[in-house]
Amino acid sequence: NYLSQDEFDAVQEALQRTLATTIALYLKFKKFHWDIRGRFFRELHLAYDEMAEEVFASIDVLAERLVMLGGSPVAAPADIERYSTVRVPTETIRDAREQLRQLVEDHNRITHAMRDDSKTVDDANDPATADIFNGLLHQHDEHRWMLQAILDDDRLD
Amino acid sequence: NYLSQDEFDAVQEALQRTLATTIALYLKFKKFHWDIRGRFFRELHLAYDEMAEEVFASIDVLAERLVMLGGSPVAAPADIERYSTVRVPTETIRDAREQLRQLVEDHNRITHAMRDDSKTVDDANDPATADIFNGLLHQHDEHRWMLQAILDDDRLD
Amino acid sequence: NYLSQDEFDAVQEALQRTLATTIALYLKFKKFHWDIRGRFFRELHLAYDEMAEEVFASIDVLAERLVMLGGSPVAAPADIERYSTVRVPTETIRDAREQLRQLVEDHNRITHAMRDDSKTVDDANDPATADIFNGLLHQHDEHRWMLQAILDDDRLD
Amino acid sequence: NYLSQDEFDAVQEALQRTLATTIALYLKFKKFHWDIRGRFFRELHLAYDEMAEEVFASIDVLAERLVMLGGSPVAAPADIERYSTVRVPTETIRDAREQLRQLVEDHNRITHAMRDDSKTVDDANDPATADIFNGLLHQHDEHRWMLQAILDDDRLD
Amino acid sequence: NYLSQDEFDAVQEALQRTLATTIALYLKFKKFHWDIRGRFFRELHLAYDEMAEEVFASIDVLAERLVMLGGSPVAAPADIERYSTVRVPTETIRDAREQLRQLVEDHNRITHAMRDDSKTVDDANDPATADIFNGLLHQHDEHRWMLQAILDDDRLD
Amino acid sequence: NYLSQDEFDAVQEALQRTLATTIALYLKFKKFHWDIRGRFFRELHLAYDEMAEEVFASIDVLAERLVMLGGSPVAAPADIERYSTVRVPTETIRDAREQLRQLVEDHNRITHAMRDDSKTVDDANDPATADIFNGLLHQHDEHRWMLQAILDDDRLD
Amino acid sequence: NYLSQDEFDAVQEALQRTLATTIALYLKFKKFHWDIRGRFFRELHLAYDEMAEEVFASIDVLAERLVMLGGSPVAAPADIERYSTVRVPTETIRDAREQLRQLVEDHNRITHAMRDDSKTVDDANDPATADIFNGLLHQHDEHRWMLQAILDDDRLD
Amino acid sequence: NYLSQDEFDAVQEALQRTLATTIALYLKFKKFHWDIRGRFFRELHLAYDEMAEEVFASIDVLAERLVMLGGSPVAAPADIERYSTVRVPTETIRDAREQLRQLVEDHNRITHAMRDDSKTVDDANDPATADIFNGLLHQHDEHRWMLQAILDDDRLD
Amino acid sequence: NYLSQDEFDAVQEALQRTLATTIALYLKFKKFHWDIRGRFFRELHLAYDEMAEEVFASIDVLAERLVMLGGSPVAAPADIERYSTVRVPTETIRDAREQLRQLVEDHNRITHAMRDDSKTVDDANDPATADIFNGLLHQHDEHRWMLQAILDDDRLD
Amino acid sequence: NYLSQDEFDAVQEALQRTLATTIALYLKFKKFHWDIRGRFFRELHLAYDEMAEEVFASIDVLAERLVMLGGSPVAAPADIERYSTVRVPTETIRDAREQLRQLVEDHNRITHAMRDDSKTVDDANDPATADIFNGLLHQHDEHRWMLQAILDDDRLD
Amino acid sequence: NYLSQDEFDAVQEALQRTLATTIALYLKFKKFHWDIRGRFFRELHLAYDEMAEEVFASIDVLAERLVMLGGSPVAAPADIERYSTVRVPTETIRDAREQLRQLVEDHNRITHAMRDDSKTVDDANDPATADIFNGLLHQHDEHRWMLQAILDDDRLD
Amino acid sequence: NYLSQDEFDAVQEALQRTLATTIALYLKFKKFHWDIRGRFFRELHLAYDEMAEEVFASIDVLAERLVMLGGSPVAAPADIERYSTVRVPTETIRDAREQLRQLVEDHNRITHAMRDDSKTVDDANDPATADIFNGLLHQHDEHRWMLQAILDDDRLD
Repeated sequence: NYLSQDEFDAVQEALQRTLATTIALYLKFKKFHWDIRGRFFRELHLAYDEMAEEVFASIDVLAERLVMLGGSPVAAPADIERYSTVRVPTETIRDAREQLRQLVEDHNRITHAMRDDSKTVDDANDPATADIFNGLLHQHDEHRWMLQAILDDDRLD
Repeated sequence: NYLSQDEFDAVQEALQRTLATTIALYLKFKKFHWDIRGRFFRELHLAYDEMAEEVFASIDVLAERLVMLGGSPVAAPADIERYSTVRVPTETIRDAREQLRQLVEDHNRITHAMRDDSKTVDDANDPATADIFNGLLHQHDEHRWMLQAILDDDRLD
Repeated sequence: NYLSQDEFDAVQEALQRTLATTIALYLKFKKFHWDIRGRFFRELHLAYDEMAEEVFASIDVLAERLVMLGGSPVAAPADIERYSTVRVPTETIRDAREQLRQLVEDHNRITHAMRDDSKTVDDANDPATADIFNGLLHQHDEHRWMLQAILDDDRLD
Repeated sequence: NYLSQDEFDAVQEALQRTLATTIALYLKFKKFHWDIRGRFFRELHLAYDEMAEEVFASIDVLAERLVMLGGSPVAAPADIERYSTVRVPTETIRDAREQLRQLVEDHNRITHAMRDDSKTVDDANDPATADIFNGLLHQHDEHRWMLQAILDDDRLD
Repeated sequence: NYLSQDEFDAVQEALQRTLATTIALYLKFKKFHWDIRGRFFRELHLAYDEMAEEVFASIDVLAERLVMLGGSPVAAPADIERYSTVRVPTETIRDAREQLRQLVEDHNRITHAMRDDSKTVDDANDPATADIFNGLLHQHDEHRWMLQAILDDDRLD
Repeated sequence: NYLSQDEFDAVQEALQRTLATTIALYLKFKKFHWDIRGRFFRELHLAYDEMAEEVFASIDVLAERLVMLGGSPVAAPADIERYSTVRVPTETIRDAREQLRQLVEDHNRITHAMRDDSKTVDDANDPATADIFNGLLHQHDEHRWMLQAILDDDRLD
Repeated sequence: NYLSQDEFDAVQEALQRTLATTIALYLKFKKFHWDIRGRFFRELHLAYDEMAEEVFASIDVLAERLVMLGGSPVAAPADIERYSTVRVPTETIRDAREQLRQLVEDHNRITHAMRDDSKTVDDANDPATADIFNGLLHQHDEHRWMLQAILDDDRLD
Repeated sequence: NYLSQDEFDAVQEALQRTLATTIALYLKFKKFHWDIRGRFFRELHLAYDEMAEEVFASIDVLAERLVMLGGSPVAAPADIERYSTVRVPTETIRDAREQLRQLVEDHNRITHAMRDDSKTVDDANDPATADIFNGLLHQHDEHRWMLQAILDDDRLD
Repeated sequence: NYLSQDEFDAVQEALQRTLATTIALYLKFKKFHWDIRGRFFRELHLAYDEMAEEVFASIDVLAERLVMLGGSPVAAPADIERYSTVRVPTETIRDAREQLRQLVEDHNRITHAMRDDSKTVDDANDPATADIFNGLLHQHDEHRWMLQAILDDDRLD
Repeated sequence: NYLSQDEFDAVQEALQRTLATTIALYLKFKKFHWDIRGRFFRELHLAYDEMAEEVFASIDVLAERLVMLGGSPVAAPADIERYSTVRVPTETIRDAREQLRQLVEDHNRITHAMRDDSKTVDDANDPATADIFNGLLHQHDEHRWMLQAILDDDRLD
Repeated sequence: NYLSQDEFDAVQEALQRTLATTIALYLKFKKFHWDIRGRFFRELHLAYDEMAEEVFASIDVLAERLVMLGGSPVAAPADIERYSTVRVPTETIRDAREQLRQLVEDHNRITHAMRDDSKTVDDANDPATADIFNGLLHQHDEHRWMLQAILDDDRLD
Repeated sequence: NYLSQDEFDAVQEALQRTLATTIALYLKFKKFHWDIRGRFFRELHLAYDEMAEEVFASIDVLAERLVMLGGSPVAAPADIERYSTVRVPTETIRDAREQLRQLVEDHNRITHAMRDDSKTVDDANDPATADIFNGLLHQHDEHRWMLQAILDDDRLD
């Protein structure tokens, strides 16, 4: 591998965490896609599925980037739980406002971390991984805007 | 809902467990897809991905069937761990024979359970769910054959 | 034909009724697709059309199954009216809640009947028709869930 | 709406009648598609289906044109029966010559009426509806020719 | 060119104005597509984009029709501003009701003018341009209906 | 394998016989597709090919189902001859009526056997194979109807 | 047929002449497509082919419209020669300017005639044929503009 | 060009004649496609169109092969008439038997000539043109068989 | 037909034998596709299927070429057995080396015979059939190379 | 939003200006696409349209990036005029050299600015926007090269 | 292999040389595609790319044909240089006339050689390779014509 | 051009070398694709082709980027030899291990150089080229992993 051990450790930490977070986010979108009820059912049922599909496409990209650099990606549920910064609910949440509130909060956390990670891996001499993070960042920024946009209405309650 | 409470409990138990097992199996196929090394790299890297893709398609089908009947599907990693009959490794397994041995064992367990579940839900007055199980059963039977077929060679070691 | 007269009569009754009901349901979805007004206009205008399209695909399947067994499918409006268990409104209903209420009620009736029909035709020695009913049942179950999900909100009024 | 009440009444009468006739014609093509027997089975079974499919596409066009102008399209079987100028048989007709004879007669009626309607709605200040009628007229003219062409043979009996 | 100077002047005036209005309408749909917030975010974000796309397709048709007849289509922002009958907001409007209210008003103006233009160019001996206007008229009528349909609800406020 | 020896023997007998019969039926449809002459040339030349194509698709399905259960599918011409219930002519038959007569007879035999096989394998604890038979049964029922429908005409001679 | 003899004669004359002219124009475009040489080779070789292809699509439309009304379309070379208003060169013309000059002249003649024909058939009570002419007129107007546009350059010689 | 004058003359004669014949055959197929009436209407209306389409594709191939060798392909109706060995009827033939009889005769002539031409151009040192003729020969042989096959029935009259 | 009796006999012998051999080869590829086990399972399971598919496409080509020339193609299993130069095993062969050894031997025989047949039919005045043989020869040469290439390894045993 | 006010102001300024410039450039390409005359008509008519289409695709990307960061994109003609660095002509320019000269100059300005903007937004802590600018920069560089390449010829005048 | 050593040597010499020439021709087309400037920029930039793409497709065909016969295809730049009859310029040529002049000369050489090679390999008992050469010959003949056609104009200078 | 001479020299050196290396790598992948023999034949024959195809797509991207900046890309075999850091073998290598060993070594060299080049061009004020390098780097990293993964097995020898 062309990364030094220190560089590799930094890149691996970022990729492993982002991978686990992405799998958890996918599962959370699907969970809400299945549990949603009420006025916003069709709107959010469809929106969550589209976002889940876009998020899903990045799982293999992140894992294989790690593999190319010599790492071994996490996949076991226990590992996803440990590394992910997103929590998938075990309880059933049917209320649109509560679902949206959680997801907006998740996306704030994810996008801030990803921008920092982009800088970290670039500094660790790995511009190709930085490039991948920048592309995904744009995607998550888009989802954050869309989820937030609906919440901008007092009458939602 | 047109199922009695007893019928619903039986169908829900089968769908919830199959859903968790299917998500875990998907993650296990991907984990091996990423970790495989050696003579069988390309062959199994591709085979696992194709099977993972076929398995993936049934996740939404199983979860939405449960939703239609009034249930709420599991998605949190902790729940997947609890309900799944397949264990996703946290350690890195690079050996083809060990990967195949685990997967064949998993598929023996999955196909036996699914055939029983098919009968259970049919008895619980839900032929549409039985129909879904019968179709998935054929798919898992196919995967079991293919995984086993390679193992049928002493020279693999 | 390989069905006895009694078997054929039972299967024909189920197919003829289901065919008429399916045509009527298609027309009802389109009627509501055209008449809907208000906050839910775009959401339901699109949802009804997708469901109508899925329902439409089964008309030819049901009619041709009957033809294969030696029957002659109904098509005249008067016959649809007579055999259908779904009533298409002649009046103009523009209110989302009223439309959804009627459709949920229709789907409760349809899915209960179809599950019974599946059993009837299986007992009448015609597993291929039972197979068709089981597939359609899953589709109608899905529509019932989606229509019901929006109604689960007090603020709809 | 930009039509005066008189204009609207004229256009609505034409659109409502054409819509009901088109739905009835679709059902009649399918009925004959299912009931046909004998030497011409495959030929007409296929021809009726192609024509039915083309006719079907205009149902939504006609109904939505009426909706755009402020009307509410008919869909209930009883209404189709009342407004349609085409009669769908309740009896089973298996003879090709009789089927073709009825359809040619229907198409003569339909194309004459549609040409008159094109003029009526143009006079009622609605050139966009006239445009739609002119396009459909060409389609029905084509079907009339094809249905008639086979009948031009004494040996058909 | 086969049009007399008077005929050409009449047709050119209609095409130039419609072209500028169409470009402005496209930009207005996009502006609202970007600025919308609140309960109707996803619904209108998608609806405006679909309508914008359909409107967009007619820009080249209108401009090239004018070119074929010997004219030179407007494209500069200042010219669009001068000729267009639709005003694109420079301020940010996030409220669904206000957006819809403006668009319905715009469409009332556009469809009335287009029907008159259809007659004008037909009288100016140019039936091919009239044909184009009739097709576009149907499209704008459809958009007006859809935009109006949502507004038909007191609870929107 | 999860089937007992008795169960496996029963399922294998049904799959092996159906496979050989399907290959033979495919070859017979093609033989008639090539040998047909006279008034019905184009009609039957095309119809036989479409049916052959549909039948062809099930060869791999049946053989692989057997493989999954641990069997080895027949493929040698001598084996096809031995197990098939359909006889492919060695002589040249150009007459439409004779071709159709044979095929209708073949399909009566095939569909009766397949319905019995569906029950047999279901009783042998293999609902996935039963499911496959039910689907193919519908296909053969359709072909039987179509082949029979043309024969329903005295003027065919 | 729903046209009177006089109406039919007028419509037939227009359709027959346009059909022959269209076939001749197609052959002329191809002839120039094959014979062109020099600086404009690739440009015109491609342009003529695209225009030929668009023109070709209208041959069947015109001929079948005539058939629907009861006529029999011309196809023999001698008839094309007699009815066509376009002359296909028997000599080899390799010069771009001469090819373009002839084609522009042809299109001036064709578009003037077609606009008159549109009026003629409308007066002859056949709005569907007028509709077809209006669509084709737009296409020929486009070709005329494009062919003329290149000629607008003194340096072409 | 790499052909001697004698070789070129031989190849050109074959290509020019085949091109004219192919255009004429295309027009004849379309003429019969439009004029056919009676029992075989749909069958031959479709068959002629498919064959015309296949024949059409070879027009550009033949003409461009001639162009590559330095020739100028014929396209004017008068030239088609002079070089073609197929005569397109100016009269209206509605009888299937007469149409088929003429076409079979045409195909006998065409296929014999093309086989001879294949040998001629091969001897003239142009194997690439021979290759093209061999491919087209197979296509015309197929059409001859299909047209002849229907005629093999006394009951056609 | 344009072949003399002697020419026809020679061409028919070649086509009939090649057709039977091709059907047998197809069945042999599928038989091995189903029976393969061990290290090479996936590799050969896929390779055989791809080759089978390519071989399959030539069955209809060969049979219809014979039909065009006046022959009647074999299809009955007994006839395939008699004419084919390839033997399909009735026993189960699971060993990759043995399967490959047989197939290489088969392809040596097939390609030698096909090259001779190409010459034979060309001498029999039928260049179009020679053309078909030359194309198929290339395909079989490719398969021979690929099957042989794997065998070129001592470690295969 | 995760940008500080200063960062946001810098990024917004760059995005708003680029968006207005892109819309103006699109309109300018179309204007020239419509107005071009002479020797280069077809070449530039097509080239401008392809470039316009590529440029068009970036409008939504730029505007939505701004929206995600909390801004409101300009769309009104007056705003486009104010922010754009490209001027769309109100006069008619038919000369290829003048059109190309203006466009090359525009592209020199655009590409220099965009490279600076890429650096600005990267410094403003927004690598995802930098990534978008880098991709668009490559596209505009390509257009500049192509437009310039034609101008590199004295004989153009 | 079924070729004698002498036959193989002859075929190998032809294939090896043609392969190297084809790779060189591909690189030359791309070189000119990148270096072209001036009036003909877009025309030739596109034309070279299309021809390069068609030429590219034959590289694998030629190399694999050689492999099937037992040879090993050249690929190293030094080998391409040695065997190719086409010289790829190391200098930058921006002038259209000079590019075209060189390419026409190359194609004269290539097509003459290929026709001779076709005969050589046919004599060497390898009709399948001859078939491939005949097909490619047609393609190169087409390119020669197109490249030459533009040069047929004195004003090019 | 917007690059200073020094910047241009640095970017040109990187692009020219990468272009030559990419062409050589493409040829090397094809060479091994053709020469491979033994157990890994099918696996590597396919893998090399897929990688060759992905590598091929970047040739035009790299060359045109250089063109846009004012350079002239190398294409002559001698130049490829001079600039490439990858050596294409002139000898025939049939052994999988030796092929893989060379390719892994090549990819180590390529990816290290490309990461350095990414930094170089970014420093040379050309972020768009850096972006291209980062994307290609990811692709070459993936190939290196896959090629290496198979070598990770002692039993390969």
